[in-house]
Amino acid sequence: MLPGVGVFGTGEIANVLVPLLREKGFEVRAIWGRTLKEAKETASAQNVAFHTNVIDEVLLRKDVDLVFIVCQPFLHAEISVKALGIGKHVVCDKPAGLHQMDALKMVRASQYYPTLISLVNHPLRFLPAFTQMRRCLQEELIGPLAAVVLMDVRVQLGTLFPEKYNWMCDAQMGGGALNLVGSVVDLVSYLLQQQAVRVHGVLRSYTKTTGAINGIRQITAPDFCNFQMELASGTLVTVALHSHTVPAKTFSQEVLVYGSKGHLVVRGGDLFVLKEGQPKEEAVYVDVQDLHFSTNNSLLPRPYIKGLCKMVGALKEAFGSKESSWIKAPVSTAATFEDGLYVQAVVEAIRKSNETRQWQRVQLSTDTPLNHDQIIRYGYARMSTM
Amino acid sequence: MLPGVGVFGTGEIANVLVPLLREKGFEVRAIWGRTLKEAKETASAQNVAFHTNVIDEVLLRKDVDLVFIVCQPFLHAEISVKALGIGKHVVCDKPAGLHQMDALKMVRASQYYPTLISLVNHPLRFLPAFTQMRRCLQEELIGPLAAVVLMDVRVQLGTLFPEKYNWMCDAQMGGGALNLVGSVVDLVSYLLQQQAVRVHGVLRSYTKTTGAINGIRQITAPDFCNFQMELASGTLVTVALHSHTVPAKTFSQEVLVYGSKGHLVVRGGDLFVLKEGQPKEEAVYVDVQDLHFSTNNSLLPRPYIKGLCKMVGALKEAFGSKESSWIKAPVSTAATFEDGLYVQAVVEAIRKSNETRQWQRVQLSTDTPLNHDQIIRYGYARMSTM
Repeated sequence: MLPGVGVFGTGEIANVLVPLLREKGFEVRAIWGRTLKEAKETASAQNVAFHTNVIDEVLLRKDVDLVFIVCQPFLHAEISVKALGIGKHVVCDKPAGLHQMDALKMVRASQYYPTLISLVNHPLRFLPAFTQMRRCLQEELIGPLAAVVLMDVRVQLGTLFPEKYNWMCDAQMGGGALNLVGSVVDLVSYLLQQQAVRVHGVLRSYTKTTGAINGIRQITAPDFCNFQMELASGTLVTVALHSHTVPAKTFSQEVLVYGSKGHLVVRGGDLFVLKEGQPKEEAVYVDVQDLHFSTNNSLLPRPYIKGLCKMVGALKEAFGSKESSWIKAPVSTAATFEDGLYVQAVVEAIRKSNETRQWQRVQLSTDTPLNHDQIIRYGYARMSTM
Repeated sequence: MLPGVGVFGTGEIANVLVPLLREKGFEVRAIWGRTLKEAKETASAQNVAFHTNVIDEVLLRKDVDLVFIVCQPFLHAEISVKALGIGKHVVCDKPAGLHQMDALKMVRASQYYPTLISLVNHPLRFLPAFTQMRRCLQEELIGPLAAVVLMDVRVQLGTLFPEKYNWMCDAQMGGGALNLVGSVVDLVSYLLQQQAVRVHGVLRSYTKTTGAINGIRQITAPDFCNFQMELASGTLVTVALHSHTVPAKTFSQEVLVYGSKGHLVVRGGDLFVLKEGQPKEEAVYVDVQDLHFSTNNSLLPRPYIKGLCKMVGALKEAFGSKESSWIKAPVSTAATFEDGLYVQAVVEAIRKSNETRQWQRVQLSTDTPLNHDQIIRYGYARMSTM
């Protein structure tokens, strides 16, 4: 039987997620919102029986065994760590908290409870074009994986900012292009199976106001990022993320990987290869229009929704096994909390590079901000109140 | 009457240039080559009566009043300065010498002989899509020129290296992508009428050998460059130049300029605009296939040949005036030696940034390496030997 789900978060993303969970057979038992009003609105719209603005009221429910955290990033670590402590499976939206300290807490908790699922929602990993690209790279279609010399990513996105002001407008919260940077950083490590050693980046905030956001609170999050990464093997990764003045509803992505014997390229949802000596590219995978959801939600581009859909499908498979509570294989594609920590480290280095105008070494935090006693206390303190 | 022309250089570029000069009505009187053999080959192929490997033998000819310098860059400054000293008009191919010291010598000479034409061949300035783009920017089609916030350039080029090893394979000579970087740097200052204050760049040499170049001498020039420039007004310019594993004969360029009220974009040879509030781009200028030359010459992409063709046309107009020896207006689009010096300064800063992994300030050399006496001596010493 599939676990009951509690959703932390309201608004656009929750309104995409809940129907998608139901389509795959999950029952959504509870919605948490930052205010009771927001929680009620989403619960009514999605026809969910229980809503609250108290975190523990979702975590302590016996009919909730899996939580999806899609609320403001500053709560990601707190909710994830508590949920794992109480024995709930966790899927946390990107980013993994506000900074490396948050992500590290999440990593420690996930390491302490290895029998629980703990994933970061990086949906591009589940997009067929990218899973196929990874397979092609492993099968050395364009030469050995270690001989990949260059990867070039270009994303153009019409809208980075929501209708109403929220954390996505805030630079300190990791909003705007910073969130998109995180997705690309994760995608690179997923595809090339290598991490960045050094990075350089330029961030710009061109959009300060929108039609609806033009009061005292202005947009501080960047809407433009150009960055470069040098991976452990010397591979160079160049990335251009544009959303400034791109027409609304646009989403285009091009991800090129140059190997010693040709290149692979994802354009939109399709994958092509050009092998050495061939006159032109050949299609390897062509996207199938199999998404039964309307994607007129402006903040989540279609490939992200499609990837999320496949990820929920993988979770269903993981839990659907008869032999044990869950099996790892179907969700092994997903980003772990360790991956989330790495992404935070790279994003932090890019922000620093933008300030210092220098390349920055990626420094992964390894301090222990939370000991095991604390993790246990989080969990059992809550259990005892049930 | 149009001036007689002497061409310094042989091989591919000379073989494009000579027919193009003739088409516009110029008579080509002499060819200089580094070896007598090379000079003879090109002179025979192009049916030019005189050839030599002695620079002065071209410069001192009375039937040569205009010289085109398309040979190795280390000779650009020497030939330009001598030619001006002797009273000849000069069009020098990019780059303007090997380094700023060379370019500065050229600038001083051109300042000393203002009645002579002294231009650097940056043909993209003459490509109609770019002249139109400049006009649209001046007419504030996408808002004030000073309010342009971002420019993004992307060039993909199939072949940067020639059949036989020459200076284009040599990093010290400014070959490969460095030469292409120079073209883009010049184009940016032409379009935005602003210079770079700081730059950051990454250069890579992925191609070490080709089918024909695989002996002791390997390619050292980069074939990849990713760079960023910050202009005086704060405008950011991001540039990606790829030639690594791009299929041979490919040439694609996309130049995007984002203003406060929309964007302009050149794709290939066409110009489009997206004005604020419009749903999609509109064509402003569509390239006309009016080039009567075969462009199967692999090293000169079609837009460069087309630009060169228009530039020679402008020279014809400049000299064709009845009133004086030449008029400035038709060639005012062209790059001056001062522009050439600026491009050298930026390319040097990009090379330094690639080494230091930091942003570099663009520092324009202003030392006087050659005084007026020396310039005069160059010229008259030669004249007296006639």
